[in-house]
Order: sequence, then C-alpha cells, then structure tokens
Amino acid sequence: MLPANTTLRTLALAVLRSYSLIFFSQHRGFAALLLLLSFANPGAGVAGLAATVLAVGAGWLMGFNREVLATGGYGFNALLVGLALGTFYEPGWAYGLVLLVGALFALLLTVALGGWLGPRGLPPLSLPFLGVIWLLTPAAEQFHALALNERGIYWLNEMYAVGGAPLLHVIHWLNGWHLPLMPDTYLRALSSVFFQDSPLVGLLMAAGLLWHSRIAFSLSIVAFLGAYAFGMATGAYAEGINHYNLGANYIMAAVAVGGVFVVPSAASYLWALLSVPITAVLVAGLTTLLARLGLPAFALPFCLTSQLFLYVLLLRQRADWLPLTPIQRYSPERNLYAYTNDRERLQSQLYVHLSLPFLGEWQVTQGYAGQPTHQGEWAQALDFMIRDADGRTYRGPGANLADYYCYNKPVLACADGVVVEVVAHLDDNPVGQVNTQQNWGNTVVLEHQPGLFSKVSHLRPHSTTLQPGDRVRRGDLLGTCGNSGRSAEPHLHFQVQATPYIGSRTLAYPLAYYLSG
Amino acid sequence: MLPANTTLRTLALAVLRSYSLIFFSQHRGFAALLLLLSFANPGAGVAGLAATVLAVGAGWLMGFNREVLATGGYGFNALLVGLALGTFYEPGWAYGLVLLVGALFALLLTVALGGWLGPRGLPPLSLPFLGVIWLLTPAAEQFHALALNERGIYWLNEMYAVGGAPLLHVIHWLNGWHLPLMPDTYLRALSSVFFQDSPLVGLLMAAGLLWHSRIAFSLSIVAFLGAYAFGMATGAYAEGINHYNLGANYIMAAVAVGGVFVVPSAASYLWALLSVPITAVLVAGLTTLLARLGLPAFALPFCLTSQLFLYVLLLRQRADWLPLTPIQRYSPERNLYAYTNDRERLQSQLYVHLSLPFLGEWQVTQGYAGQPTHQGEWAQALDFMIRDADGRTYRGPGANLADYYCYNKPVLACADGVVVEVVAHLDDNPVGQVNTQQNWGNTVVLEHQPGLFSKVSHLRPHSTTLQPGDRVRRGDLLGTCGNSGRSAEPHLHFQVQATPYIGSRTLAYPLAYYLSG
Amino acid sequence: MLPANTTLRTLALAVLRSYSLIFFSQHRGFAALLLLLSFANPGAGVAGLAATVLAVGAGWLMGFNREVLATGGYGFNALLVGLALGTFYEPGWAYGLVLLVGALFALLLTVALGGWLGPRGLPPLSLPFLGVIWLLTPAAEQFHALALNERGIYWLNEMYAVGGAPLLHVIHWLNGWHLPLMPDTYLRALSSVFFQDSPLVGLLMAAGLLWHSRIAFSLSIVAFLGAYAFGMATGAYAEGINHYNLGANYIMAAVAVGGVFVVPSAASYLWALLSVPITAVLVAGLTTLLARLGLPAFALPFCLTSQLFLYVLLLRQRADWLPLTPIQRYSPERNLYAYTNDRERLQSQLYVHLSLPFLGEWQVTQGYAGQPTHQGEWAQALDFMIRDADGRTYRGPGANLADYYCYNKPVLACADGVVVEVVAHLDDNPVGQVNTQQNWGNTVVLEHQPGLFSKVSHLRPHSTTLQPGDRVRRGDLLGTCGNSGRSAEPHLHFQVQATPYIGSRTLAYPLAYYLSG
Repeated sequence: MLPANTTLRTLALAVLRSYSLIFFSQHRGFAALLLLLSFANPGAGVAGLAATVLAVGAGWLMGFNREVLATGGYGFNALLVGLALGTFYEPGWAYGLVLLVGALFALLLTVALGGWLGPRGLPPLSLPFLGVIWLLTPAAEQFHALALNERGIYWLNEMYAVGGAPLLHVIHWLNGWHLPLMPDTYLRALSSVFFQDSPLVGLLMAAGLLWHSRIAFSLSIVAFLGAYAFGMATGAYAEGINHYNLGANYIMAAVAVGGVFVVPSAASYLWALLSVPITAVLVAGLTTLLARLGLPAFALPFCLTSQLFLYVLLLRQRADWLPLTPIQRYSPERNLYAYTNDRERLQSQLYVHLSLPFLGEWQVTQGYAGQPTHQGEWAQALDFMIRDADGRTYRGPGANLADYYCYNKPVLACADGVVVEVVAHLDDNPVGQVNTQQNWGNTVVLEHQPGLFSKVSHLRPHSTTLQPGDRVRRGDLLGTCGNSGRSAEPHLHFQVQATPYIGSRTLAYPLAYYLSG
Repeated sequence: MLPANTTLRTLALAVLRSYSLIFFSQHRGFAALLLLLSFANPGAGVAGLAATVLAVGAGWLMGFNREVLATGGYGFNALLVGLALGTFYEPGWAYGLVLLVGALFALLLTVALGGWLGPRGLPPLSLPFLGVIWLLTPAAEQFHALALNERGIYWLNEMYAVGGAPLLHVIHWLNGWHLPLMPDTYLRALSSVFFQDSPLVGLLMAAGLLWHSRIAFSLSIVAFLGAYAFGMATGAYAEGINHYNLGANYIMAAVAVGGVFVVPSAASYLWALLSVPITAVLVAGLTTLLARLGLPAFALPFCLTSQLFLYVLLLRQRADWLPLTPIQRYSPERNLYAYTNDRERLQSQLYVHLSLPFLGEWQVTQGYAGQPTHQGEWAQALDFMIRDADGRTYRGPGANLADYYCYNKPVLACADGVVVEVVAHLDDNPVGQVNTQQNWGNTVVLEHQPGLFSKVSHLRPHSTTLQPGDRVRRGDLLGTCGNSGRSAEPHLHFQVQATPYIGSRTLAYPLAYYLSG
Repeated sequence: MLPANTTLRTLALAVLRSYSLIFFSQHRGFAALLLLLSFANPGAGVAGLAATVLAVGAGWLMGFNREVLATGGYGFNALLVGLALGTFYEPGWAYGLVLLVGALFALLLTVALGGWLGPRGLPPLSLPFLGVIWLLTPAAEQFHALALNERGIYWLNEMYAVGGAPLLHVIHWLNGWHLPLMPDTYLRALSSVFFQDSPLVGLLMAAGLLWHSRIAFSLSIVAFLGAYAFGMATGAYAEGINHYNLGANYIMAAVAVGGVFVVPSAASYLWALLSVPITAVLVAGLTTLLARLGLPAFALPFCLTSQLFLYVLLLRQRADWLPLTPIQRYSPERNLYAYTNDRERLQSQLYVHLSLPFLGEWQVTQGYAGQPTHQGEWAQALDFMIRDADGRTYRGPGANLADYYCYNKPVLACADGVVVEVVAHLDDNPVGQVNTQQNWGNTVVLEHQPGLFSKVSHLRPHSTTLQPGDRVRRGDLLGTCGNSGRSAEPHLHFQVQATPYIGSRTLAYPLAYYLSG
C-alpha cells in the first residue's frame, strides 16, 4: 500500500507512457512530445487525454495488472479511441458519454486480449482500439445525439485557434519548404497514427522517434522505402504514391518486427524488410474486404503482421538467428546493449546463479490452476514447506502456527543484491485463515541485476529488519517463514521477476536452470 | 453403469433443465413453466423439445461430459435452434431433416466451444446456437424444399388453435390492461428469448424469473431501465422505445454479470449496470455490421458482454471486490447464501481440512496432458503409489498385483462425511491391462459438506463394505488399494469434487492448501 | 548436422510429400502422380511446384519443426496457393513477386496456426491457404500489374500444348465414354482440389487415391452419395447435380473424419456419413455468407467439419467407440493394422514397459513454460539430476562438471530395442554455459517397437560406443551423464517419442503409466 502521492505519480506516469508506448517506447521526452502533438487537433487531444486518464484510473481501481498499467499498457488503446472519437465527432453530452464508454470498453478489451494472447507470448497491440472503434462507429449511426465532426480537416484553422498568427507563420514557413513527394508522404503517414494528416506533425513525430531510437527511426525509413518499391512493382501506386494511405502500418510493423521483438541486427533489418510485402498484402486485401462491411482497416495490418512475425519466431525449433528480446527494455538500443553485454562481457553472468532461499530440505508445493494464487502471470512461483518422513508438514494437530516445521525457519537471500522493497508489519493469520486483502503478506524483494529480482513472501511479522537500499550477500538472513497474506498455513513463497513491484509477473527461465542446484 | 430407469430420469431432467438453464437456473418449476410457454408457438415448441431431446440423447451416447449434460448444458443451444427453426420455417420432411442436423450441429458446437472456452473459465453461452443459425438460415436459401413460415406473427391465431376461445378471452383481458409502453417493451423483450413477441408470455416468464430468483429479476429491471436511459442519452430511441429491439440482451447480460458469475452485492449491481452501455454499443454496432452480411445479431451482444465482464474479473491481480462465485449453485440467492455462510459463520470451515487418504509415505504421480486420464476437467486429480528407496513401486518382476507395494494397503476417509456412492464389484486388471469401459473402477465417494465431495478409485474388488448413507469419520477405512478400472498397475486415485457424480470435474483449491499437510 | 546430400534428399521428399499430404497420404507413388497431374494446367503446375520448393526451403532455413517439414506439412498450403495463383493470373514479374510473397505467407500462417491449434490436438489443414488466398485475391484488385488469366478454362488447348495430338486423342477417347452424370460430377469434384475441372484428371486422382488406400477411396464414394442424397432431400439440387460445386469438401472431410483421425471401423464410416449433412450446411451457408464479402468458400467447409468432428472426439469423457488414431501413419489401412495388431496380438505390449534410464535415486526437474526447452511439442520430456540430503545437486562450489553428483553416472536403456541414432562427438559445456547450436548434445535414440522410440541426451562426449543398428537389452549401458548441448549443468534428458528423429515431438502416455515404476 503505497502513500497516495506515490500512487498519483505512478498513475500520471502511466498516462504519459501511454503516448510513447504506441511507438513501443518509455522515453518520457518522446511521450511528452507526442502528448503535445496530439493537441495539434485540440478536440482530439482533449478526448485522447481524458480517455487515457479514465482507462488508467479504472484499471487501477479494478485491480488489473499494475506492471502493465505502469508501462502505459492499459492507456494507449483508450488514447487511440479518444483521439479517433475526438477527430470524428462533435463535442456534446452524448459524445462525452460515448467517450466514457469507449475508454472503459478499450480498457476491458485490453485486459481480456492481454489475458488471452499474453500466455502465448503475444502483445494485444492496438487490437482493442480496433474492436472498440469498429463497434462504436457503426453504433454511432444509431446514436442520433452524436454528430460527425466537419472540422477535422480544417487543420490550419485549428492551428490558428491554438497558436494564433505566430504558429501559422511557422507552419507556412515549413510548408514553404515544398517537401518532395516521398518525404511528404512519409511524414503524413506518421501523423496518421494520431488521425492527422500533417507533414509538420509528422516531422515532429519523426524527430521524436529519432530521439527515442536511431534503430527504430531507421527501420521506419527502410519500411517506407520497401513499401514504395513493392507498390511500384505490383502496380499498386501506378498513379504515384500520393494516394499512399495507411503507410503507418508499414512503419509500425517494421519497428516492432525488426527492433522491438528481436534483438536488433543485420538479420533483424532483413526480417523487417520481409514484413513489408506481407503488410502490403494485408493492407490491400483488408481494406478491400473491410470496405464491404463499411469499416476502415486502420492499424489492423500492422497488428497482424507484427503478431505473425513474432509468433513464428517463438515456434522455431532452432533459433540460429534472430534471437528474441529476453527482457523488454522498450528501446531497441537498450535491448541490443543488454543482449550484447550479457553475451560478450561475461557469459557466465547471463543468468545469475540463484541458490535456494533456505537451509536444509524443503519440498516444493506447486500451485494448481484454479487455485487463487500461482496462475496466469504468477505461474512460475514456487511454494516451499518442510515435511517429515510421513509427508506431514506439522507435528501434533497442526492447529497452531508453531506446529508447522517450516514456521519461523530462516529465509535467505538467493544471491547477492540490493533490497528494493520491504513489507514487514502484517500479522500472521491463524491456521486455516487467509488474508485476501494483502495477498503477499510480509515480503522482501531483492534486485540482483537490472531486470532480475527475487521475492520471498508470507514472512513472519517484523522478522526482517532490512530497509530498501540495504545490500545483502547470498545466504544472508532476510527474515523467517510465517503465515502472513494469502496463506492458510505457514509456507515460503519464492519467485523471480523482471521488475521490482510486489505482484510482478514471474520469470521462469532462471529457475528452471538453477533451482535444481 | 446406472439402471436404465435412472438413466432415463437423468436424461429427462437434462431436457427439462435445458429450458431453465437459458436463464442460468436449475429451478424445475421455472423450467416447466418455460417448457409450457415455448408451446405458445406450438410449432416452435415441438421443434424446440424435439431438438433438445435429440441433443441430450446424442450427447449421452457420444460419451460427452455427463455433468454438463445433467445441468442441461448440452440441450439449451439445440433448444434455441429448434425454437428458431420452428418459428421461421414451415413443417415438412426437409424441415425435419434440417432440424435434426441443426440439433446435432448445436450439440457438437457446444462441446467444441465448451472444450475451448472452459479451461479459460468461460461458458459458451448461446454462441453455439448463433453459429448454427447463422449458417442454417443462409444455407436454407439454397435448400428449396424448405419454406419460410408465414404464420409466425399471427400469434393470436396460434393461441386460438391451442386454447380456443377461453384462452383468447384471457389474452384479450390481459391486453385490455393497456400496459404502458415501458413494461410492455420489457415483457416483449423477455418473450423474444423464445422468438416470440408477446407481453403475456413475457409476463409469465418474468413471473417465473421472479419465482426462480428475486436477485435475477431485479437485475433484469435495473438493466432495462439502464438501457432505456442510455438510449435516451445517445438519441438511440429518439422516436420512443417502441422500436426497442434486442432488449433481452441487456437483461440476460445483467443477470449473468451481476447475479451469476459473481457473488451478488451492491457492487455486483453496479457492475451489472456498467454492462448496460457496453451491451448497448454491441447491440447497435453488431446489428449494423451483421446486417451487411444479411445476419441478425440475436443474442451475440449478451454473449460477448457476459464473457468479457467475466473474463476481466478472472484476470485481476487483486480482487478487492466482486468475488467470483466459487461453486456455481445456479441461483444468485444460493450462491450468496453459501458465500456469506462460509465467510461469516465459521471462517475456519471455509475449507474443510482434508487429510491424506492413506497411512505412511506415498508418492504423487501426477498425470501428464495427453494421458487418457487427468486432463481437462480431471486435471486436479492425484495418483498415489508407494516407492522403495530405489524409486521402484514393486518388488521382483512386477508382473503380479501383489508385487506392488501399495496393493491392498488401506485407503482412508480424508475427512468426516457421508458415503454417497459405492462401486465394489469390478475385478482387478492384470498388470499392464486396463479396463476402458469402467474408467474409475471400484470407487467410494464421500460428501463432506454441501458442494465438497471426495472420491477414491481403483480399489480392490469387494474391499469396501460401505453403503451409501453410511457415516464415516476421518481416517476410517474405506477399502484397499487395487487395480480396477483404467489402471494398468495398482495405484490410488484421489480427487475432490463439487458434485457427487462419479466422473465429476475436480476441484483444485482445497487440495493445493491441504494436501501438503 | 546431416551431410548436404541427406539434407537435399529430405527437402526433396518434403516437397514431394506436400502433394500427397493434401489427401493425408505419404504414398510416394500417389504423390508423384499428383505432381504430374498438377501439370495438366502447366502454368499452375509450375507455380505450385515453385511455391512448394520455396516454402519447404524457407521453413528449413528458418528453423521450423523438421518433422512437420519432412511430412510435407509446411509445403502443401504453399502448393495450393501456387496452384491457385497459377490458375487465376497471367505470368509476369509482378505475378512472380506475388507468388513469392504468397508462398512465404502460407508458410508463416502454417507455422502460426500449427502452433496455435497443435497443442489442442487439431491440424491446421488448408486454413493457411484460405487465409492467404482470401487476402491475395482482393489485394490483387489493387495490384494493377497483375492480370487475370483468361486461359484457365481452355483446358484442351493446354493439353495440346503439353502432349500434342496423341494426348488429345487419349482425352477424346476418354471423353467419348460419355460418363454418366454422377461419376462425371464426382471426378470433376476431385479435380477441383487442384483448381481444375476435368473428369480425366479426376479419374487419375481417384485411381491414385485407391492406390493409396481402399478405405479412403470408399469413404470418398460414401460421402459423395451421402451429399447427393442430402442435396436431393433438401431441394438443393432441384435442377440436377450438374451445378454440384465444392464437392471435394464432402470427400475430403469424410476421408479425414472417417479414415484418418480415427481408427477405421463400421462406426467410423457412420461418423463420416454424419459429417456429410454438416458439411452440406457449411457449404451452403458459407458460400452465401462469404459471397457477401466477395470471397469463394473453397475448402473452408472441409476444414471446419474435419476439425469439429476431431475436436469433439478429443473432448469425450468416455470413448466407447471411435478410438482416435494413436500414432498417425498417414494411411487408414496402416493405422487400422497397427491398432488391431496392438490390441489383439498381445494386449500387454500395447504399452512397452519402460524402466528408468539410470540406477539409484534421481529427481525430476520438469521444464517450465517459458524456458527455452521442454515446451510445446517437447512438453513431455523429463530432466533428471541427483540431489543430496540438502537438495543440492553438486558438492563444493559447483563450478566444475565433476562437482555434480550425476556427472559421468551410467545412463541405461529403458527397454529392449535397436539403436537408431547416435551423436557422441560434442564437447561438454563448462558449467553455466549452453550450446544453443546443438540443442540435444550427445544423444542416443532407441527404437523399442514401431512408433515407440526413447531418447537420452546431454551425454558425456564419447561415453557411448554404440552404433546405429546395435541391439540393446533393458538396463544396458548407453553412455554416461554429461553436459553437452543446451545444458548449463550436468543432467540427463529423457523422452519417449513416436519417430526416430532427434528433435521429434514427445509422447506422453507411456511415461505417465510407467515412469512411476
């Protein structure tokens, strides 16, 4: 239970990151720039921000995954819904109601799609936005209190309203450049991510993308050129590329396929280039098919190409090239650095060697699907108890905590690290009762290296005297085994995770190698 | 293998429950009322009953899940298919053939969708009906021997044919009430569940719903008013609600979301109310989109809203409110009572403490996916054997049953309870052979408290002398370990389940806590 | 790493088998005949072969499942895409590019769908082809460099171009037979699998099907007659069956449902016959619905019926009849023979009794989802290590291989058998490092009976002196435990599989029964 101002800060960051996460980034400067650019269409900007705040707040209150929330994962689909509604419809009371419903709908679809695709290693991308907008726009035909927006295209008027003559001056100066057709098309394609059609906004977005990552930016150029070549070869752009719509699909798919899901390399640029003709077939095919249902394709080709190109890599029997990003750091450069560093500098440190967090012989009690804990994202956690020769975990009737063999036994650091989180004040439950309000009970989280954390839970109250920031060595005492949190009888819960949060999703791979040791 | 009359009774009950299960109920009176009301359109009533009988019978013969079958789970989609076909088409030979195919198709789709959604915690609802009817109606355009029914709307004529002048008199008297627009619309929406458009049938259905559950009924009213308000706000009902179609979607979704999937509470009513605008967007959006394919939306909005609102609750990291129904008792009131009772009266009895069903040290042999047993709904079962220091389960060559350490060892009651089922007459198999006709072999099922049963299987023939109704205490002898049923070498199968049937789906949560003890 | 000529031979066979796999066959003669018949439309034949070669080659390079590849599983959807494109479009550069993209797209969709459906026991069938062609044909409307083929129907001209007057003479002689309507329709339906409309090609395909399997052929006749009867009864063929399109759907579905997925029997013929009206509803319904999107149904009804009829059998609680094919031998006759043989000749040999592949007490370290190994198709593998009383697997610091208790310990044959594969030359890795190029490290594969193989991996280099062909008895020394391959510390990997390949998918069922012994 964090203090309120920390919570507010987390939520505010989650809102901000929803903007950059559209480009797979957590770069705050890029995010702030995108937030600003969304107000190039002020109505859309307001609606987008309102929808994002709503979705992030509701996601927090409903108890959905806080780690996903913190990265902006619950906000960016609502953001897109808000931008789209703000672009297409006139403000009004009915509009406000539909915006509210659309934002919540986007949140629910994000959670549901994430729950369905997540265990398969796939992200929902902007499919939740597509689901909402494909329902909302045909539904709006029956919502007579909603009026279509006629202003959307009068972009310069909007600009004038926002920045007055000086801003218009800048715009005219920029437009005075007379951008050649290809860069003009590229920049307008970028701006279409926010439902705009402005080379200027596109230019600023491109600058932000470059600020965030040179790899991502260069992939966007590669994809654009590849799409142009494929279009020329197939005669899709016989009349020139000024009808080149939906270009953002190529750009986004190439960034995802070549720079985010895999460790960047020459092979990953080729892989991204290979994605271009597939995206092109999806763009051409889906726009034709969906038009027969009266729907625009939006970002669907990007989503499908990205998921397909990620999924087949996950299904390889041998991965001789194109290694997948082991821990997502939301930056192609940082993913590449972490990977290269791990591999080259010290092979044996690729996985920190973790020891068991106790002395003597304990036994694993794995969670079963259906039990309240140890499922979904917590599937890789381990529970430990001590058993006697008869397989019993307690002496006597087992009615008291002290009857349990593991109760009050030492719990140790599984490797060197720094304490990042401590909860120590929760009471032990009586045997057979559980505390469903504070699932994890008394808990210590250690950071062993960037992206590698371990957590021990259900400790005895005040059995730990550690503070965040303390350094521990492998085998140091962290506390003693207790029965706090969602624990009906004393046991030790141990898990390895990629982030410092209590309640993070668990990591499996280091356990499989080393807990046997 | 039950005697024939028991089988017939089970099947007849399964047919009856198919009617009430449409409203998530197992209330026999409500079911009988609904069966009766389906005959308000006699042709539809006959077709619905025939399709239900066919699907239930075929489901039994094909060996599909008997517990699902007993609740009406395999019948109600076929029932809806029958009602729809009986409403839309003229009787005839081709019609009879299509009805037969449609009922079987509904059964197969129910099984398949149940198998796909079930492990994710989601019910198929009426999606199988939708799949069948969306294929059958366009297919029927090519089946020239099928004729569309012109009578469907002449409801009064049907009534006259059934009940003559007296019935018409009652109807006219009721119609003489001149129901105000809103209750009239509500009742007609209810009757549309059976493809009818009759305030009278709706009134009787509403009465039945109230009979079944005040909570469900009140949720239906809340949903109706909410939908009306949302429709007014968005201008969907600008010309009044007399065009208010598909109203049953709001009602059914609210009952499911607020009264069936979660324990009823003030929060669950709010949750149900929140489902209304989402259902409204789905109703408006899907009717528009599906019309472009020439299809009606029917109950699709209800299905999607209900599954979405259930699924996101399953995916929460923290469940501070809206607890999910732990064991479905098919009545909001009974679900609430069981939950409140468990929590308030005796916290420590929330889970009965189960002991291991044997003495000494046995080892768990968990089933693997792909093995004939222990998968899907039996995933939480445990097999136990005794191993020596070398990890072997038998002495000597292991060719005889007596070579196995666990053979003929005592099997004990894991807690106090009442014997509800005994099978003791099946022979042990020779080592290496299995009896695939009587999977469970000799078996004893105990009831420990309502909704909590345990089962031991593969016992030695005639090793138990217990009879149904006998009381046992924790540790009492139930029988001895044998090799009957689908068992290739002596072992003890133990599982906890929510219903008394041999072959019930297993419960996981009590095992995970207590079998470690 | 096989020598190049072996690799080429494997790839060539994979291309050939892609043809027969369309009919669930691995019969080389049938495959060669089909390859030949695909050239009855020479343009389509060339395109089909090119697409198949491309997909098989790319599948190999990308590291997708080699066992699936070897059966033609990655080639046949690309083959269908090639045949369709070659039939519909004129040759040219843009055409060549689209063919290339289509073949790769088919490969990626095959891998992705296989990865998604495979764990549910379902094959992707020709759904990947449908996905590609349903996108490519509407996309091609925008690819102005692509021209529709006008020649497709001038089949005789094609024949003349290929075989000159003599071939035409044969054709005219055959056509002179004046085939009655029903066989004519049956044969044309068969030829439509290759997008042709020729009784002659159909006759040769029928002959090939009969050559491959009398059961499959007879099922095709049963399905055809059943479809005809159902069409007559429903009035679908009121004007005669000469408009009888999409007939191959009935034939293919019946072969799959009654002869491939289940062990052939009288019941399986009935099951196949039951599939006919469901396929008929799908054919009629889907052609109508998809026409509203401008798409043809192609083989979609066949795919959906086959998957539905297989899936519900997998979900049965009791399987009193219609036993599923335990190991697919790609021939109804061989499946039947293997099943009957196993059951009747020696019941106790249905499962070979497997012993543990070591002496003393080792402990299982199961893989976790998310770890690089032991997932998907290798989920049923087991890793073994030796632990001391403290649960540690090594003495001292664990930095040297010799510190590990299991290192260099004997690894034994789990049953009598013949050595079929030996790898012995790979070095052990230092502790903490893995060899990701040769996953399995030093390995011995034994064949115990047809379709039952066991494999031990990560052996010490040169610890085995066995050669393929050597006979071993249960308990014979195979080698010693090492740290070669993808192994970070010494452990023994053991799995049971249905095929001799290193990297085969694992079998679960025999383990569950016998590894406990």
